[in-house]
Amino acid sequence: MSETIGFVGVGRMGANMARRLKECGYPVAVLYDVNTALAQSLASELECKAVDRLADVTQLADLVFTVVTDDEAMREIYSTESERDSLLKQAQGKLFINCATVSPEVHTEVEKAAQSAGAQTLEACMASSIPQARQGTLYLICAGQKAAFDRAQKLLQDLSSSLSYVGGTGQAAKVKALVNMVMNMNTAALAEGLALGEALGLDLTTLREVFGQTGANSQVLKTDGEDMENRDHECFFSAAHAAKDSGIALTLANRCNLDLPLAKATRDQYQRMIEAGLGELDKSGVAELTFKGRQPKKPGSEAST
Amino acid sequence: MSETIGFVGVGRMGANMARRLKECGYPVAVLYDVNTALAQSLASELECKAVDRLADVTQLADLVFTVVTDDEAMREIYSTESERDSLLKQAQGKLFINCATVSPEVHTEVEKAAQSAGAQTLEACMASSIPQARQGTLYLICAGQKAAFDRAQKLLQDLSSSLSYVGGTGQAAKVKALVNMVMNMNTAALAEGLALGEALGLDLTTLREVFGQTGANSQVLKTDGEDMENRDHECFFSAAHAAKDSGIALTLANRCNLDLPLAKATRDQYQRMIEAGLGELDKSGVAELTFKGRQPKKPGSEAST
Repeated sequence: MSETIGFVGVGRMGANMARRLKECGYPVAVLYDVNTALAQSLASELECKAVDRLADVTQLADLVFTVVTDDEAMREIYSTESERDSLLKQAQGKLFINCATVSPEVHTEVEKAAQSAGAQTLEACMASSIPQARQGTLYLICAGQKAAFDRAQKLLQDLSSSLSYVGGTGQAAKVKALVNMVMNMNTAALAEGLALGEALGLDLTTLREVFGQTGANSQVLKTDGEDMENRDHECFFSAAHAAKDSGIALTLANRCNLDLPLAKATRDQYQRMIEAGLGELDKSGVAELTFKGRQPKKPGSEAST
Repeated sequence: MSETIGFVGVGRMGANMARRLKECGYPVAVLYDVNTALAQSLASELECKAVDRLADVTQLADLVFTVVTDDEAMREIYSTESERDSLLKQAQGKLFINCATVSPEVHTEVEKAAQSAGAQTLEACMASSIPQARQGTLYLICAGQKAAFDRAQKLLQDLSSSLSYVGGTGQAAKVKALVNMVMNMNTAALAEGLALGEALGLDLTTLREVFGQTGANSQVLKTDGEDMENRDHECFFSAAHAAKDSGIALTLANRCNLDLPLAKATRDQYQRMIEAGLGELDKSGVAELTFKGRQPKKPGSEAST
């Protein structure tokens, strides 16, 4: 495993994956981020290069992880317009491992463009959060050409505690969109249950214990319940990401002519958070919309006392 | 513990609680149900009396469990109109243990009326289902006068694996309404996630496994996920009950001026099931509304082929 490694996007997830790979002894060679200071800071920590052109990442790395924000960012880094900077410049033989949660069709477009450039791609959707990235215990759902999966398998095993291959390009993104859609719904639901409990004067610690032992139990009760009560919304998975991922799932649902009222209500809640300037809170911040007396003021309005 | 025991309401839950108590050696003496055949059948199984007057239950039992349908049924069995049959006829010294999920204020009304008749009441809300009732492993949340709780405690321990006392009358009903509200939301959410997975051509067994290892995990994934896939909606907790309990929670929310969009969307889904004639399916039957090609026809319409 002497192939050199690059990262495009070194935010919370990407940076910790890079740290983990470095720690495992892999040659992490090059980093890129639109926030150049972020890339430079991590490059000095990991003793590698920070570059400000995407094409330089491709030149310096055999395997390139991309962990970018959204569909638009994915299309941009894989631009096929000849005059623009792109990961696909002289990309022959390279493998691009795309970890962001984006629309399935973007994975398909990117795969096609990469193939034209003589490169491989792999979807590696992450159904876990920042501590798991750091510790190499991600839950990774992969899709794409089997040969691409095989090439990266050892590396991906060192990043994950569970690694699965679910089929051709686009399939992992669908699974991931569904995971996040259900997680977001359960989160928005929990925020309603705890808000009503508080409004009724119940002790929320007891209530969370009861939820945990009954049909109301959920993974988000464990990860977000106490944070909702304590208004601790330090960001692991942002409300803006939740809105985006629920939106991806709803687009898929519309194409299938499925009516999903809770998924819609949930997307609307996270959209409201963005509109209220709360998009960068953790998804647990949806409790700020439901708890009595917490309703956010419109941006720019006077703070009340 | 030689106090004799009566049951009002011997449907799925009540009957199994009676069986469990009989098995533990308690003197189950008398049963009542609006469905007299149901009461007679269980009475012959348990070698006790079935009666067709509520006042006879009170006469023949020291402790009376009530497991009835809804607020209206509760008000009816505790009627204070002198000419009507009622559990409160000559009820001096009796203890009524009310297990149905009804509105908190109904528990308060009933307690007041019972006190006037010289009797005690206890709320014992059950956050579990039929197998737990049979095995004596219910999750019981109690509220009311502490003296009433103490009087019934030994008996309630034999019915439950977890027994808690959360305060004065009405408090248990609030906790229970919240448990069911959140459970119903998570159920309706899961039905959307699995429906979209199926529509996208994903393998639902794999998808449920992924859900179970990620932020999409929930108790209802364990209890209802496979049933949703297989359309196995044998009733443990009916859609009609889900609609009722979510309705109780929404009434409480309205009084507190809380806006709970997912709770509303969930109540509406279960209400739609009732309107489509599916109210007696298990709550997992909400998947019949979301999966492609399963949409119920209006009652009385022609079956398509």
